[in-house]
Amino acid sequence: MVFTLETRDAKTMGRCGRLSGPHGTVPTPVFMPVGTQGTVKTLTSQELVDLGARIILSNAYHLYLRPGDQLVAEAGGLHRFASWPLSILTDSGGYQVFSLQGLSKVTDEGVRFQSHLDGSYHFFTPEKVVDIQRNLGSDICMVLDECAPYPCDYQNARTAHERSVKWALRSLEHFRGNRPVHSKEQALYAIVQGSIYHDLRTENLQTLVEKKFDGYAIGGLAVGEPADIMAEITELCTRQLPEELPRYLMGVGRPEDLVTAISLGVDMFDCVIPTRNGRNGTVYTSEGKMVLKNRRYESDFDPIDRNCSCPACRHYSRSYLRHLFQAGEILAMRLATLHNLYFYMDLVGRARQAIQRKKYDAFMRQFFTDYQTNNKSANE
Amino acid sequence: MVFTLETRDAKTMGRCGRLSGPHGTVPTPVFMPVGTQGTVKTLTSQELVDLGARIILSNAYHLYLRPGDQLVAEAGGLHRFASWPLSILTDSGGYQVFSLQGLSKVTDEGVRFQSHLDGSYHFFTPEKVVDIQRNLGSDICMVLDECAPYPCDYQNARTAHERSVKWALRSLEHFRGNRPVHSKEQALYAIVQGSIYHDLRTENLQTLVEKKFDGYAIGGLAVGEPADIMAEITELCTRQLPEELPRYLMGVGRPEDLVTAISLGVDMFDCVIPTRNGRNGTVYTSEGKMVLKNRRYESDFDPIDRNCSCPACRHYSRSYLRHLFQAGEILAMRLATLHNLYFYMDLVGRARQAIQRKKYDAFMRQFFTDYQTNNKSANE
Repeated sequence: MVFTLETRDAKTMGRCGRLSGPHGTVPTPVFMPVGTQGTVKTLTSQELVDLGARIILSNAYHLYLRPGDQLVAEAGGLHRFASWPLSILTDSGGYQVFSLQGLSKVTDEGVRFQSHLDGSYHFFTPEKVVDIQRNLGSDICMVLDECAPYPCDYQNARTAHERSVKWALRSLEHFRGNRPVHSKEQALYAIVQGSIYHDLRTENLQTLVEKKFDGYAIGGLAVGEPADIMAEITELCTRQLPEELPRYLMGVGRPEDLVTAISLGVDMFDCVIPTRNGRNGTVYTSEGKMVLKNRRYESDFDPIDRNCSCPACRHYSRSYLRHLFQAGEILAMRLATLHNLYFYMDLVGRARQAIQRKKYDAFMRQFFTDYQTNNKSANE
Repeated sequence: MVFTLETRDAKTMGRCGRLSGPHGTVPTPVFMPVGTQGTVKTLTSQELVDLGARIILSNAYHLYLRPGDQLVAEAGGLHRFASWPLSILTDSGGYQVFSLQGLSKVTDEGVRFQSHLDGSYHFFTPEKVVDIQRNLGSDICMVLDECAPYPCDYQNARTAHERSVKWALRSLEHFRGNRPVHSKEQALYAIVQGSIYHDLRTENLQTLVEKKFDGYAIGGLAVGEPADIMAEITELCTRQLPEELPRYLMGVGRPEDLVTAISLGVDMFDCVIPTRNGRNGTVYTSEGKMVLKNRRYESDFDPIDRNCSCPACRHYSRSYLRHLFQAGEILAMRLATLHNLYFYMDLVGRARQAIQRKKYDAFMRQFFTDYQTNNKSANE
């Protein structure tokens, strides 16, 4: 996918542009709904298109384990398998291997880990993870990286950073040395690591930028650090990343994190928050979060948000949604997921418009005036 | 709702007609999707309309317990609460009280039972169950009945039959003695009981028919009896029920049961089979049942049914659906539910057309030629 930078905001580092590739064009900034197992939980492809999604995220680690990237290749790639006609970014699985597994073992060659499904042993190398993503046929592939936890001492952060750089370079070499399985061109993004240490982040980033990847992700954030550190490290990176290439802040985040990060020049986001929280009955409005299971909504016949025109708000009341959650009905999870993704899409879309008008600072100020936040930690 | 008989088949007792009421017209024969808790599991109202559903079934017992019929009344009735614009039939809860509870105690006055949700004690009388359905505002209300289990000895069947008759008459008197809560007219159907005993069924039916209910349901079937006994008792009833009123075979059933019962002059059906089995991964085709989780579908990239134009078959393969079921994804349950209801709607719609052409016998013969059945027991 080719990135075109269109507009820079006047007073913030905010920017908008577009990513164009074999499965269409994606205006940025963009939020990518998460479809870990080849499906954005509870939704059909058509519903995602209707919500305005132009790119979704899926996960090489999960699809490798089940149903298997070979099977997806046999189906004609992930777009055909999942009946998703637009763009797909696949995460490499580095984050999963290091976070889901207690029993992963890293060497410079790669990482040995146990499947979270059946305990079977597997070995990922940077090359293998590229091959998996070739089989999946995603539009954007991510390199295998070692994601340091938070907090992480300097020495461990340095080790993870150095290994991540080596793996990124091996990934790029392997990626350039072979062709797509499904004929359509794929892009490869590097992932900047280095924990919260400025010198490590800078060293990591500069080495990767020299190699001219198709885009740059900021990894190792949204792993439990405070929101101000997330913003600090994000800005450290975006100030040094090339203007002409897309920047992707991985795993972020809460609505307020997106609004902040967009002001720092981030173009792409993904997070399970709107979908996961939706399934648990937490929905988002311009005034903050709302826990639908709360007794106060028992006989509240208003929609979640009077100003929202999502399918849930057009037809259903808080009272009915609360009943569905109390009764354990699947429709509750669907409707809350739809609403939350609609909220995220709308928020990022309005952020884009504000940048186009070069008034992102006013947009951001208004958002934080209306929206009840707490700043305890990111990704709550 | 007013029933109009339109056409009688030439060689079978099959018939078609229409039910017209304040929430639209329902062509018969009709299959009513089951929305026990005020939602047909996994689906939105719009999806049901798109599938061709013109009437759904909900349950007075469940809605009384949660969220409470008073709350539904406050919302403006079940149609508004659940955002369902078309017709609704509510079952009385008799079947639930006698089947869900080990600890129900029946007297001539009514039935004391424990909630399956919290163990709290409740007392249903025929009058109270009418009041609940007035609060819900369903288009068709059902009387409280005592549903005998299968097998049931003659004396117990007689007791249940006699009590059911008394309750039906009390229901009718109470129903006629008060007005709808939500202004729109409601209908009240009687339920014929009497287990498998011809004399009890006949006695029960004749007493109820004299009282001129708005419609007649055949209850106490699909409770474990063999398919031939279900057909025998159904025919015994339909031969004696008035031609000009609708006949509703409660809780039935498998596709083959519907095809048989339509030939015996039944107009209305409801059953959890298409929705419940769909959620468990069993889907229906013109050739019989298909268990999607089966390994044989792992790399089968055909749709469930090449000739089906439901949303699942238009976009997704057996292989992908199997993956979704293996991965425990909610979308699997949605798509299988959509497919199964589409299959049931299509089957009953084609049965209707065959009756209109006065060729239902040929339709039935073709169905049983194509469809792999087993005749072990109904409602498997």
